[in-house]
Order: sequence, then C-alpha cells, then structure tokens
Amino acid sequence: MKITLIVIGDEILSGQVTDTNSGDIARIISRANWRIHRIITIGDDADSIRRAVTDALETSDIILTTGGLGPTKDDITKGVMQEIFGGETVIDAATLENVERICAKRHIAINNLTRSQAAVPSSARIIQNEVGTAPIMWFERDTDSGKKVLVTLPGVPHETVHMMNTAVFPELLRIFGNDITVSHRYLLVYGIIESKIAEILDNWERELPGCLHLAYLPVPGYVRLRLDGIHSDEIYLNALLDAKTAELHHILGDSIFSDDDIPLAEIAVRLLKQKGLTLSTAESCTGGNIAHRITLVPGASDIFNGGIVSYANSVKTGILGVNADYIATYGAVSEQVASQMAVGAAQAAATDCSIATSGIAGPGGGTPQKPVGTVCIAVHTPSTDFVSTFFFPGNRERVIERATSTALIELIRRIK
Amino acid sequence: MKITLIVIGDEILSGQVTDTNSGDIARIISRANWRIHRIITIGDDADSIRRAVTDALETSDIILTTGGLGPTKDDITKGVMQEIFGGETVIDAATLENVERICAKRHIAINNLTRSQAAVPSSARIIQNEVGTAPIMWFERDTDSGKKVLVTLPGVPHETVHMMNTAVFPELLRIFGNDITVSHRYLLVYGIIESKIAEILDNWERELPGCLHLAYLPVPGYVRLRLDGIHSDEIYLNALLDAKTAELHHILGDSIFSDDDIPLAEIAVRLLKQKGLTLSTAESCTGGNIAHRITLVPGASDIFNGGIVSYANSVKTGILGVNADYIATYGAVSEQVASQMAVGAAQAAATDCSIATSGIAGPGGGTPQKPVGTVCIAVHTPSTDFVSTFFFPGNRERVIERATSTALIELIRRIK
Repeated sequence: MKITLIVIGDEILSGQVTDTNSGDIARIISRANWRIHRIITIGDDADSIRRAVTDALETSDIILTTGGLGPTKDDITKGVMQEIFGGETVIDAATLENVERICAKRHIAINNLTRSQAAVPSSARIIQNEVGTAPIMWFERDTDSGKKVLVTLPGVPHETVHMMNTAVFPELLRIFGNDITVSHRYLLVYGIIESKIAEILDNWERELPGCLHLAYLPVPGYVRLRLDGIHSDEIYLNALLDAKTAELHHILGDSIFSDDDIPLAEIAVRLLKQKGLTLSTAESCTGGNIAHRITLVPGASDIFNGGIVSYANSVKTGILGVNADYIATYGAVSEQVASQMAVGAAQAAATDCSIATSGIAGPGGGTPQKPVGTVCIAVHTPSTDFVSTFFFPGNRERVIERATSTALIELIRRIK
Repeated sequence: MKITLIVIGDEILSGQVTDTNSGDIARIISRANWRIHRIITIGDDADSIRRAVTDALETSDIILTTGGLGPTKDDITKGVMQEIFGGETVIDAATLENVERICAKRHIAINNLTRSQAAVPSSARIIQNEVGTAPIMWFERDTDSGKKVLVTLPGVPHETVHMMNTAVFPELLRIFGNDITVSHRYLLVYGIIESKIAEILDNWERELPGCLHLAYLPVPGYVRLRLDGIHSDEIYLNALLDAKTAELHHILGDSIFSDDDIPLAEIAVRLLKQKGLTLSTAESCTGGNIAHRITLVPGASDIFNGGIVSYANSVKTGILGVNADYIATYGAVSEQVASQMAVGAAQAAATDCSIATSGIAGPGGGTPQKPVGTVCIAVHTPSTDFVSTFFFPGNRERVIERATSTALIELIRRIK
C-alpha cells in the first residue's frame, strides 16, 4: 500500500515555516506499520496542486494533503479538489456550526472569511475539525486497482495531529487495515561515532536475517540505532528482535545508555523519579536550555525544583555561591567553577542532584586556550561528583545543543 | 528557472528526523530571489532516487539533493547518480585528504567506511566538504533547454548550510545569475487574529498593484505579514514596498510590534542594547525557555545577567523573595506572585528589566478556576510594571511556546 503526502504552502517552500506535519503524520501511521512513500512539497498555486494530486492518484492508495486551507485569500486547494473530484460548491451546515463554535470558544467575531470555510465541494465527505475552523475533506475514488482515498488536513500542526489521531487515522485503518507486522527496537549509543559503530558491527550486520535491518540515525551528541523488523508472524518477529537487541547490548556494552527512543530529558526525569531523587540546574553557556528540556517533560515538577541561569559572574557568586577567587584564578569557564556551580545549585534549590555548564558558545569570547566550543560540564549526585571539559564544534546553536545533550547524558549515566 | 530539491532519507519519511535542510536552503537561495519550486522527499532506495532524479531532470534547471550520503551501508545515492550521469568509480585524492583531515581534527581513527567516502563517480566534479566527510558532487548536463545542474549535499544540517553558503550557492549564482528583483517587507502583528486582519485589509489588498502580494504567516502568538514584490526595476519596487508598508503601519497602528522578521528574543536583545538596559528572568511554567531563547542570540551576555527557574515554591520564596503568604493566599499561579517574581529576579540578578511567568502548562495541575493553559506574565522595566493573566490552548509544549512568545512580545512593547 502506497501513501503519498502532499504538503501545500508557499511558506514551507520559502523556508519561512518548517514542516512538522510530515513527521507527526509519519509517526502516527507507523503504529499501523504504515510508512509514507513520498512527500511532495509544493506552493499555493493551482497548477502545482493539480499536478501533484493527479500524479499521486496514479501511484498511491492513500493521499494526505496538509495546508492550503484557511480563511485567507491565497488558499486555492478546495477549487482544485472540486475540479478533480467533481461536485459543486455547497455550504455545509455542520461546518458552519463548527466554525461558529470555534470562533465563540476563541472569543472571535465570525466574519465572511471565516464563514467561507463552510463552502465545500459536494464530492467531499466532511470530517469536522474539532480544534480549528478548516474542515477536513475526504474524497474517494474506486479504480481498477482498488479504492483510493484523498484526505485534506489543515496546515496548523496541532489541528493536523489532533484530527489524524482522533478521526482520519482510525477511518483509514478501518478501510486499509493490514496484517503484516513491522516492529522496531531502539538503542541509544554515546561515546562512539557512527562509522566506528558500523565497523564494530560489520560482521554482526552481515549475518542479520533478511527480515531485519539496522538503521543508523545520528543526532548531535549520540547515535540512535534502530533495528527494524518486518514479518507476518508477530510473536516470532518480536522474539527475534529481542534476541538481536541482547546481542547488541553484549557487543556495545556500556556505550548503550538507553533502550527507549525518547528525549534525553525524559530518560533523565524517569530515572530520577525511579530513584526518588530531585534535580536542579546551574547554566551558563546553555542559558536555560537544560531546564527547558527538563520542564518540557510532563510531571517534571515531581523531580525538578528549579535552576539558575548564571550568565553574569555576579549571579554565579551571588546566588550560586561560587568563589570569586576561583573565577579570577581559573576563569568562569573552568572545571573548578562548573563544579562549584553544580554544588551551589543543589544547595540553593535543595536538591539531591544537579547539572552545571560553563562554556563559550560563541561567536565571540574564544581564546587560543579556550576556543569557542569549550564547555565544562559538572554533574553532582549524592554518590559522585563528575566534571569534565568538552569541545563541541559548530555555531552558537550547535554548541548549546551539544552541551545540553552531553550534560543530560552524563547525568543519566551517573544515576542509572 | 526551476529548482527542485530532493530530500533523501528513510529517517525523514518515518518522522524520526525533521528535515530542516529544505528551509535553510530556501532561505539561502532567496537572497538571489530564487525559490524552490518543489521538494520531493523519498527514502534511501535506489528506485525512488532514480525516479525522482529522472523526473526532476525533465522539469528543473537546478536539482539539489540532501542526504543519502554517509559512511554507513544504507547510502546508495552515489550508485544511482553514477548510473544516470555515467562515469566510473574513482578514488578522489583530495577527498581522501579531506576525510583524513576531518577525522584527525575530530580525533577519530580513519577506517574503511570513512575512507570509502573518497570513492566517487568520475562524472562528478567534487566540491570538498570543509566541515564533514561526505564530498559534494556536482553533475552537469547540457540539454536543448539549457544547462542543467545537479548537486548532492550532505544530510547533516550544519554541513549543508555551510557548504551551500560558501561554495554551492556562489557557484550556482555564477552560472544562473538573473536580473529580476524580488523583495519583501515584513510586519509582525500582535493582538489581532489572521482572519480579522484579512477583513481589515480587504479593500487595501484589492487595490494592491499586480506586482505585490500580501502573505499571511501565522505563528503561535502573533501573525507575520509578508509583502512580496517582484519587478524588473529594483528602485521602483523598493519605493513601492516602502510606501505600501507605511500604509499598513497607518492601518494596523500599534498592533505592529516589529518590521524585522527575526526571532522575538533577537528583537528584545536589540532593543535592550539600544536602550542600555539589562534583563533577567524568573520562570515557572516556561521552565527556562525564555532564558534559552534570549541566550541563543549572539551577544545576549551584553544585556542578560541571568535567570531563575523557580519550579518549587521554595525557590520562589528563597531565591526570588516571593512572600510565602502570597503563595498561600493567591496561589503560585497568580498575578501577585508573578509580579513579585519579576521584581525578585531584577533584584537577585541586579537588572533594569525582568520577565516572570507562572502558569499551568499541563497535562496535570488544572482546576476549574485555573485550567491548564492559565499563565500569569509579569514584565518589570524601570518605568512600568505590567502583569496580566493569559489563557493559552493546547498541550504542554504549546502552552510553554505561547507563554514564551507572549512574554517576549509584552517585554518588547514596553521597552520599545
């Protein structure tokens, strides 16, 4: 079964907006072992939409479109769909009611533009958008090679995710349900680069049965390994994946720091909860990003008391109690100061564990001894105090990301 | 001139990795008034790559590919390119040197897999990748409709951005330089929703000359308006855009808070620098995200002393000096507590201005009086103290994002 996704929007092609809908949709349909075969991203113009839909109807069973729907004038998707699937423009009463309900909930006066969202092609079955005003249109066509479905989703990410989860995906499953099992196992690896892992696993990969495949997904700071399996016998497949995952653990040992492919902060929050430990942060170069990652995790408040972003030295000495002589002697970016920041945060926020970072994110501030990218990371736990100096290449954003990931991994390794 | 981008990678189709290269490339080529016509996203399989490249060669002048290059086994792009553009596999000495240089710089032992990156089709001209090991291959084909160029870029975002900026884009410009001017003006609008703006601007938009177009780009918390113009006379176009932008300022008034389409944090940092003011933050529900956004801006240390993430009430009363009675009487999520947090942060970090947030990001913690999404935001400046309660719909991540944006906008409006 082939699924094509058509992403519509000048703002995506111009780079003004990053398309996150594709990833969200891919992750939702992966629950049914489906994958997107192809994504076509085009602008808000009728010719491009017409060509993409016509092509996709020839090669795909399911076509999902995102974007190109909305109250403003540059939205022409509806017209093209009506041209391709036929029918006439009708006012859908339920959609009009929905638009009125959403506008009332948002305390917005309804106007002719919002009202025009209720004008839809009669060839479409309408699925009410529970969280927005753009209706979802469901078109079907019976062909010699079976049923084809095209569904238009909104461009607003949370609307697309909500409606895929609650209405569109369940309905697609009902029509196109399948019986092949696809399953994965994840391993997160730290401290070995991708090509070195590939070298270590060379023989092991050669001997993998044909139904399994190892994918390398490097991310800044670590490598995600995904062992993919596809088989008609679900029980056999899962047993095989478990056995092969155990072999990877045996080969890669301590370098594997997680079997869950979830954000590092979520791994840390789960572990801290399990161990009954609390956390605080003292961030200089990461500027609050570690605290932000931690607090994105629902329930973080159970283990996270708070953090200090100590950009100015006066905040390091004042709130964190760092010795001013240490800053003068060793510099603000030093293992001595990072260690004191960690201990100071744990004291100020009364926590068991803490993370501290002090570094030079750039573009300015580098010296020959401490170039841009130099970051000291300290981790304090009830049983150990860790501190080390890292060098992360790249621009300011990359240095901050790498320092954040590495600090979280170093914490995870110490509380595991 | 048509530009097609082919994004190669199973990890993008499966939603494991978000494609940011497309947006980066679009923004880089927009400097020459070029836009991407179509993006095709496909998996790491030879058939899909072959079909996408063959199609694109028929319809496009420039084809850029990202991904599908790298030392591990699932990379097959090179083989398909060799099949399409001909030539034989040769070892490129300069590439081998580059791979050795990069590996040495990263303190990585070179192995057969990294070394294999130097094996390239002889039909390609090689551009050395200064920041990674995957070489960039430049293929050309002369056709009846002119020269066609295909360039393979790596999948790693910072490598692609660096090499587009320094080598690929300048070379494309040399070959395909054009003489039509495309120019934009941006206006960021706060406090009026998209459909209401469209209603207000209805007549104005109707009377726009054909060479101009107004695009609505809503983002959480505000609306970006982009006035696009295209004309052969650059001076005329810019004068027209300036005149029309002035009209929009006249119509939308104070709702426009910036003419620069840059991140909110960067607007805030610039304004604070201009006014010679310093900033601190006291964040509860936003958990460090405001500090993170501020410190992502190069030079933020000139104006940002630091911040406190006060998740636990003990941190609010301890470091920020919030009155414990206020927390007991009004609750931690209250305008009274948010105001005290802002004042406390300014005192603790010795700054002129401060931002504070206290809210319920969810999924837990909501009550009928203060449902999930309730956020109190306080802004302290030398001349004014602002506090207000907002309600942001959506999940935890959206509430944090909206609260962060709104807090930054409220700061910008008060120091402008």
